[in-house]
Amino acid sequence: MARNSIGKNLVVTSFGESHGPSVGVVIDGFPSNFTINHKALQSFVNRRRPGQSNITTDRNELDQVQWLSGIYEDKTLGSPIALVIANNDARSKDYDALKDTYRPGHADWLYDHKYQHRDHRGGGRSSARITAGWVAAGALAIQYLEQQCISIRSWVNQVWHIHAPNCEATPTSESIESNDVRCWHVETAEQMVEAIRQAKMDGDSLGGVIRCVIEGLPAGIGEPVFGKLHAILGHYLLNINAVKGISFGDGFASTKMKGSEHNDAWAMNNGRIHGKTNHSGGIVGGISTGDPVIFDLAFKPTSTISLTQETVNKAGETVELNAQGRHDPCVLPRAVPIVDAMSALALMDLFLEYKKD
Amino acid sequence: MARNSIGKNLVVTSFGESHGPSVGVVIDGFPSNFTINHKALQSFVNRRRPGQSNITTDRNELDQVQWLSGIYEDKTLGSPIALVIANNDARSKDYDALKDTYRPGHADWLYDHKYQHRDHRGGGRSSARITAGWVAAGALAIQYLEQQCISIRSWVNQVWHIHAPNCEATPTSESIESNDVRCWHVETAEQMVEAIRQAKMDGDSLGGVIRCVIEGLPAGIGEPVFGKLHAILGHYLLNINAVKGISFGDGFASTKMKGSEHNDAWAMNNGRIHGKTNHSGGIVGGISTGDPVIFDLAFKPTSTISLTQETVNKAGETVELNAQGRHDPCVLPRAVPIVDAMSALALMDLFLEYKKD
Amino acid sequence: MARNSIGKNLVVTSFGESHGPSVGVVIDGFPSNFTINHKALQSFVNRRRPGQSNITTDRNELDQVQWLSGIYEDKTLGSPIALVIANNDARSKDYDALKDTYRPGHADWLYDHKYQHRDHRGGGRSSARITAGWVAAGALAIQYLEQQCISIRSWVNQVWHIHAPNCEATPTSESIESNDVRCWHVETAEQMVEAIRQAKMDGDSLGGVIRCVIEGLPAGIGEPVFGKLHAILGHYLLNINAVKGISFGDGFASTKMKGSEHNDAWAMNNGRIHGKTNHSGGIVGGISTGDPVIFDLAFKPTSTISLTQETVNKAGETVELNAQGRHDPCVLPRAVPIVDAMSALALMDLFLEYKKD
Amino acid sequence: MARNSIGKNLVVTSFGESHGPSVGVVIDGFPSNFTINHKALQSFVNRRRPGQSNITTDRNELDQVQWLSGIYEDKTLGSPIALVIANNDARSKDYDALKDTYRPGHADWLYDHKYQHRDHRGGGRSSARITAGWVAAGALAIQYLEQQCISIRSWVNQVWHIHAPNCEATPTSESIESNDVRCWHVETAEQMVEAIRQAKMDGDSLGGVIRCVIEGLPAGIGEPVFGKLHAILGHYLLNINAVKGISFGDGFASTKMKGSEHNDAWAMNNGRIHGKTNHSGGIVGGISTGDPVIFDLAFKPTSTISLTQETVNKAGETVELNAQGRHDPCVLPRAVPIVDAMSALALMDLFLEYKKD
Repeated sequence: MARNSIGKNLVVTSFGESHGPSVGVVIDGFPSNFTINHKALQSFVNRRRPGQSNITTDRNELDQVQWLSGIYEDKTLGSPIALVIANNDARSKDYDALKDTYRPGHADWLYDHKYQHRDHRGGGRSSARITAGWVAAGALAIQYLEQQCISIRSWVNQVWHIHAPNCEATPTSESIESNDVRCWHVETAEQMVEAIRQAKMDGDSLGGVIRCVIEGLPAGIGEPVFGKLHAILGHYLLNINAVKGISFGDGFASTKMKGSEHNDAWAMNNGRIHGKTNHSGGIVGGISTGDPVIFDLAFKPTSTISLTQETVNKAGETVELNAQGRHDPCVLPRAVPIVDAMSALALMDLFLEYKKD
Repeated sequence: MARNSIGKNLVVTSFGESHGPSVGVVIDGFPSNFTINHKALQSFVNRRRPGQSNITTDRNELDQVQWLSGIYEDKTLGSPIALVIANNDARSKDYDALKDTYRPGHADWLYDHKYQHRDHRGGGRSSARITAGWVAAGALAIQYLEQQCISIRSWVNQVWHIHAPNCEATPTSESIESNDVRCWHVETAEQMVEAIRQAKMDGDSLGGVIRCVIEGLPAGIGEPVFGKLHAILGHYLLNINAVKGISFGDGFASTKMKGSEHNDAWAMNNGRIHGKTNHSGGIVGGISTGDPVIFDLAFKPTSTISLTQETVNKAGETVELNAQGRHDPCVLPRAVPIVDAMSALALMDLFLEYKKD
Repeated sequence: MARNSIGKNLVVTSFGESHGPSVGVVIDGFPSNFTINHKALQSFVNRRRPGQSNITTDRNELDQVQWLSGIYEDKTLGSPIALVIANNDARSKDYDALKDTYRPGHADWLYDHKYQHRDHRGGGRSSARITAGWVAAGALAIQYLEQQCISIRSWVNQVWHIHAPNCEATPTSESIESNDVRCWHVETAEQMVEAIRQAKMDGDSLGGVIRCVIEGLPAGIGEPVFGKLHAILGHYLLNINAVKGISFGDGFASTKMKGSEHNDAWAMNNGRIHGKTNHSGGIVGGISTGDPVIFDLAFKPTSTISLTQETVNKAGETVELNAQGRHDPCVLPRAVPIVDAMSALALMDLFLEYKKD
Repeated sequence: MARNSIGKNLVVTSFGESHGPSVGVVIDGFPSNFTINHKALQSFVNRRRPGQSNITTDRNELDQVQWLSGIYEDKTLGSPIALVIANNDARSKDYDALKDTYRPGHADWLYDHKYQHRDHRGGGRSSARITAGWVAAGALAIQYLEQQCISIRSWVNQVWHIHAPNCEATPTSESIESNDVRCWHVETAEQMVEAIRQAKMDGDSLGGVIRCVIEGLPAGIGEPVFGKLHAILGHYLLNINAVKGISFGDGFASTKMKGSEHNDAWAMNNGRIHGKTNHSGGIVGGISTGDPVIFDLAFKPTSTISLTQETVNKAGETVELNAQGRHDPCVLPRAVPIVDAMSALALMDLFLEYKKD
């Protein structure tokens, strides 16, 4: 039951429900004497904020991070950092009709079954709102990793059938943030926005793929056997709401390659070993090679749609559902900072271990 | 560094190197008073055994499970179960040439970099030989889960460009075991075997996809937030050698669907809630729905090939590598029981927690 | 570094500093659908409250528990329960003089040494104020254990040289709460109060012993080897500020007994096995026997005293310290609920595991 | 249930039963490239060996350490180190009479109750024989700590009513090993040996106290809140068979002191801060001060005695027990290396964390 903490060296404990007083995290293991850039951190958190554009949900939250502990004079103490983000714009009444009706694609009935008592308002604990705390924690980890010259960059690489072209260089933050959908490629982004708008108008929803590239990671991160870098990343990232798959490097495409095509030949470059190609996505044997780590995350289309759906209620009766409540027609634009954040938490957890060796 | 244990309620600790005295596991948390079917267990372990057919490696090991503790009169004691599998047919001399040459696709140089001391023989700790212990542990978990009417069935669904057709019902064990490649569909299996033989003759290797279906799992397994069923499965399965991706239900294909297409409508069936379809792969909100859990695992082509490859050595010189050592031209046939085993360990870990509630 | 969580099944994460905004805990793993008695819980927390009598510190805090998550309509959700207790009466200026002076018996310089950045105000993270959160968490565990008919009763058994007589029956809550020092025996309590008052007047401090008796614990709690009941209790309780020792049953006195004197003969009683005596303190082989669990905790005298003391400052100079800041001349009266609470958290952690078997 | 591993950075997993094939441990997290002194290690393990003198049990085991993994060319690989120690001189028949008779002071009936299946031979999992593995693991940790100039020295300080005098300097290894009872003070040792011989002749047993001094530990080891150095030591050491209490520094005696007597004044010495006295036993606020860490462990008298005892059997009948089986009339002499070993494992676990900061 106690599965709300993640990490070994940097332990992040998540708490909160969508319409409770607040959501938050406790971050244990963060090194002491680190100066927090509060402004940059809040800006990062704002990237996940609801109501940021007209292709996201209308719920309007300031998502102001409130620090409870672990910081003194803007520097970390080495003690646990607790932070909360208030739930201000919760419209619980919107969910009254859902108290006994089980939404398709959601775990409503499973919570009733598993816990015998459920906060149905806004999805309660299963709401993606709780990722606000993760993003704040991840933003702190990102500041730490940046000091180690490690950068993480995610973007929306596919929405529905619309793909971004392959990029030769890692996209800049500016190009990713230049549009509402967070795809670095302007023309693709426009098509994606249009598709999301259309889905919203139709009362439907879309899924897609977020790609992430991590640069500057030193060789040697990740542990053989049960701490493989991609397994740890997988564990963190598969916990993000709506994620249905993850692949590294050439991923599922590599299954159609021959070894002679897929193997990255080792070669010296600037005094250290690199792959001449990077089919492996910067991870070999579960250990970072020093080359960019690349992975793709599959997001299913948002489960909440406005179209009428057939389902059952608590009494076991077949009913028609016309969903209320505000929601995103496509979760990917707001999921980009969540992917950045969870990647950062996974990497920092392993990095703190690596430093020790 | 200490990342050789996995699980919370059923903790499996792995040890051993490819050419050391033995590989093994300690299984802690297995319930007491459970009668082990030794014969069935050994048969299961034999499915992973090297040298079982002419499309696998020639290394010849009996892989006899030797029990060190935790069992008395064929029943578990509730204390840790330690078991070892001897390494008998290790030809360490084959690896003399590789002591200072770093094989493409392998973590040789990363071990040297990370540990400053390496057992290069047979890949040492990075060898898939260590999964022999995992398979023995998983075989025990499978016996336990079977008593709970939970079954796990994996098969090779794709090798290189060759796909099995979609199956209407879950394939039988007999159909899977009826051929060397472990694909239930006879004609596809024949094509796969032929492709693997050709790759072997060419000195090359092939990858592919293993599909797994879990049936009989009750609704309610998996924990919200950081213990989502698919995240835990992902963590276990991504640790299997050569795995580069995992997806659940419709997986990456779901990213191209609309919510109205992907959502599985809830409906009553035999007094309980089921999905009318199963796009989600039996997991919603990280919790099992009681419908079959389905996932795909992407395996890269075997890194060890006989074709000449360019690489570097310990001195940083560019060298040509003509690999010695016995290896599988395609790891998937022998990986099927590993997938079964690791899935069972993940499920049993969560199941023991579920029983408590 | 990440050592601010305790427990496996009931994971309690502590956060907060003495003069930060608040102290708190997150409780993960608490069963769902449990109705909280808020009034009883707050009353329990008030037992630890500063300023409750004239033999405790003058710091005046309401210690009102504020719930952030995990509860809906007064019942637990099965999700993490976060709670905070505000720091209202912090007089940080009192500590200005201590910023660079290292108090004897305190870890001031060790924090500077270990973390390079310290919140010196009120002891920061090392303050016993953070136990307010532990007590709230423990109060919840006590309510749960009471439903299982498990009771925990601690009292001050010794202050300085003043001992309570041996009690024939476990003291009642009423007798313990009937006086400021929380010793069930009235005459002894009066002597203890007098001694504490004298120490306060002298600017000095006193230590003592708290005894705890746990009744109703079923046989079978605790795990052989590294989860022995007394080892787990020891781990929890030795973390309480000022504790320097713990002993079970006859404890250090048992070292002077012969086996024939110490062994508790097994005998049937009401259909189950009991010890005819209880020298072992209700624990044999690390497992509860069903007889009362009894232990003693040694508390050193409060480190903060008003008498002039010699010490060093941050610059390494020898200085005289005349301590400011409000403090308890004897921590034991307020430590009684902390002992109850931490015992409850340890027991509930093991009990949840026991129920699973 | 899964409580057979201990540690976070150096994870030791224990397995084995007294009369099974072997006892052993897996050590995960041990740094790589460390050269093992096998001879010194075996010598250390021999200190715990049964049959070493005529005041110990007659069971005769070679206790030869057999390494299964983690070592190559006498140096650690950074992978898990598995080792086993065979059970050769198990006389299981001696225990036939005990299959259904529950020995006083032992957990026999609790195992039957808890596990429904028990290996009664030699105490099975509850036997102190399993500490052979702990001692081997600890011996390795001691070699590591010695390279860091950290030394651990335990000795028998009290047997029954016989105390060693206070020692001015830490006793030498030679003085401790100079006699069968492992007390540094020759005259006291002679009295202890005589008392143990008498108890053996009487068919009775004796308890006592082991004192341990750790020197060379740098300041800063241990984590505030739930990772206090003495709480971690307590957790490890209370798990040793027959231990009923632990106290640090002046321990229970400190409860009768005033703060002005107990506080250790800080003073500069050779450029760093030290306590002018060491009442605290080298730990303040849960963190090592750099002064010697000192603690006492209370051992109850051996539960197995030859005198006739009253007890019950599996059928619930009152029976007389005349114990068979070989045992120690006083466990303390052989427990000295166990205390050394478990202390070393606790310290190394925290030390690896400390190095990271």
